[in-house]
Amino acid sequence: MKILLIGANGTIGSAVDKELSPRHEIVRIGRNSGDFQVDISDSASIRKLFEQTGKFDALVCAAGNVTFAPLSEMTEDSFALGLKDKLMGQVNLVLIGREYANDGASFTLTTGVLSHDPIYSGASAALVNGAIDSFVRAAAIELPRGLRVNSISPNVLVEAMGKYAPYFRGFKPVPAADVALAYAKSVEGLQTGQTFHI
Amino acid sequence: MKILLIGANGTIGSAVDKELSPRHEIVRIGRNSGDFQVDISDSASIRKLFEQTGKFDALVCAAGNVTFAPLSEMTEDSFALGLKDKLMGQVNLVLIGREYANDGASFTLTTGVLSHDPIYSGASAALVNGAIDSFVRAAAIELPRGLRVNSISPNVLVEAMGKYAPYFRGFKPVPAADVALAYAKSVEGLQTGQTFHI
Ligand SMILES: NC(=O)c1ccc[n+]([C@@H]2O[C@H](COP(=O)([O-])OP(=O)(O)OC[C@H]3O[C@@H](n4cnc5c(N)ncnc54)[C@H](OP(=O)(O)O)[C@@H]3O)[C@@H](O)[C@H]2O)c1
Ligand SMILES: NC(=O)c1ccc[n+]([C@@H]2O[C@H](COP(=O)([O-])OP(=O)(O)OC[C@H]3O[C@@H](n4cnc5c(N)ncnc54)[C@H](OP(=O)(O)O)[C@@H]3O)[C@@H](O)[C@H]2O)c1
Repeated sequence: MKILLIGANGTIGSAVDKELSPRHEIVRIGRNSGDFQVDISDSASIRKLFEQTGKFDALVCAAGNVTFAPLSEMTEDSFALGLKDKLMGQVNLVLIGREYANDGASFTLTTGVLSHDPIYSGASAALVNGAIDSFVRAAAIELPRGLRVNSISPNVLVEAMGKYAPYFRGFKPVPAADVALAYAKSVEGLQTGQTFHI
Repeated sequence: MKILLIGANGTIGSAVDKELSPRHEIVRIGRNSGDFQVDISDSASIRKLFEQTGKFDALVCAAGNVTFAPLSEMTEDSFALGLKDKLMGQVNLVLIGREYANDGASFTLTTGVLSHDPIYSGASAALVNGAIDSFVRAAAIELPRGLRVNSISPNVLVEAMGKYAPYFRGFKPVPAADVALAYAKSVEGLQTGQTFHI
């Protein structure tokens, strides 16, 4: 398969790369790094990406930004980044990407544990993750040509605990390699409309 | 209690009014109808509302618009209404409303079954409902002064089947009076961070 991997250079993306590259052609994409660049928060940039990559069999998005801030400091504007980047960025990858997807191609988006297991400062992350997990369930039943869409909802990663540990006390972190398996299940299996909780 | 009821004139709102008005002071709010008017998609309009109503003990939002359209016809723009109105409208009721909320006041938002039981043309509704259900879980743990926030996720209503039946074949519709009980549980009980599925 030809797999577009957005965020290939990141903590999750590099583990997905390692899991899938022995069996597939990986097109590595990042905001600054990789074979191609995209800013998923900009739909024109997404369209430009697909014009460069051409048709594909699977798209994995392991990228997406939200604002982490105490709820007491959050205003409407604090939610704008999450809506534009991690939420509509990933929705737009499906809406625009379907034009470039081969029959039977899959979209695998990334959410996270905060949708249902919240932490201090995580309101925007929760909102965005919950939105995407519900979007994939709904979009899956309407996609034509055997196209599929799933989301992966990882717990905090072992590899990210250096940075995130103070925010995730009591969470049992999961190795990136285990998370990468869920991406393989989504890409190489046949399920659709699912959220895989890792 | 002094309860602000947004959407008091609607299918759900009028049932909530009937359930709560025998025991509480209801301030009826609509886009065009009611004691006060607000457009929840406009945060300036929300602030103006609270300046008119003054302090309150509970806010119920039984309003919120999204775009229903086949996924094949949806673009980024098709999601804008849902993000601005039902999603950020309700988030802003909490973000702005907390300044006007008495200690221990509650916010009760409205989502719906489409977050997890999707129908044709329901991708934006699903996304928005899932976002709010996750937002309330996260916001609840950070609200100060005993403030609470829940969402009510109704199935399609008996009273709405005249209009919605063709879209909801196979769904068992629920009477508005039963849905209204969930709002009473949220307002008059003590739970927070919950989604009540009716
Ligand atoms: N790390 C965790 O513990 C964890 C747990 C659950 C969920 N998640 C979610 O998983 C996703 C990835 O997390 P991560 O920790 O792997 O991130 P990361 O290590 O910071 O890597 C992010 C990757 O995404 C790319 N990227 C960032 N913003 C982008 C944009 N607007 N458009 C296109 N590409 C962009 C970056 O490209 P460049 O390198 O080229 O800049 C980088 O390759 C995030 O949505 C995060 O919320 C992470
Ligand atoms: N009906 C169902 O079967 C069902 C099932 C599950 C979930 N829901 C959800 O429940 C909510 C209410 O549904 P409903 O069927 O009761 O609606 P409805 O009968 O159409 O009533 C909507 C109410 O909200 C007000 N409103 C509309 N847009 C507004 C805005 N931008 N700002 C402030 N107020 C606004 C209207 O005011 P005016 O009358 O003054 O114009 C009206 O009072 C919706 O979010 C819907 O998705 C409905």
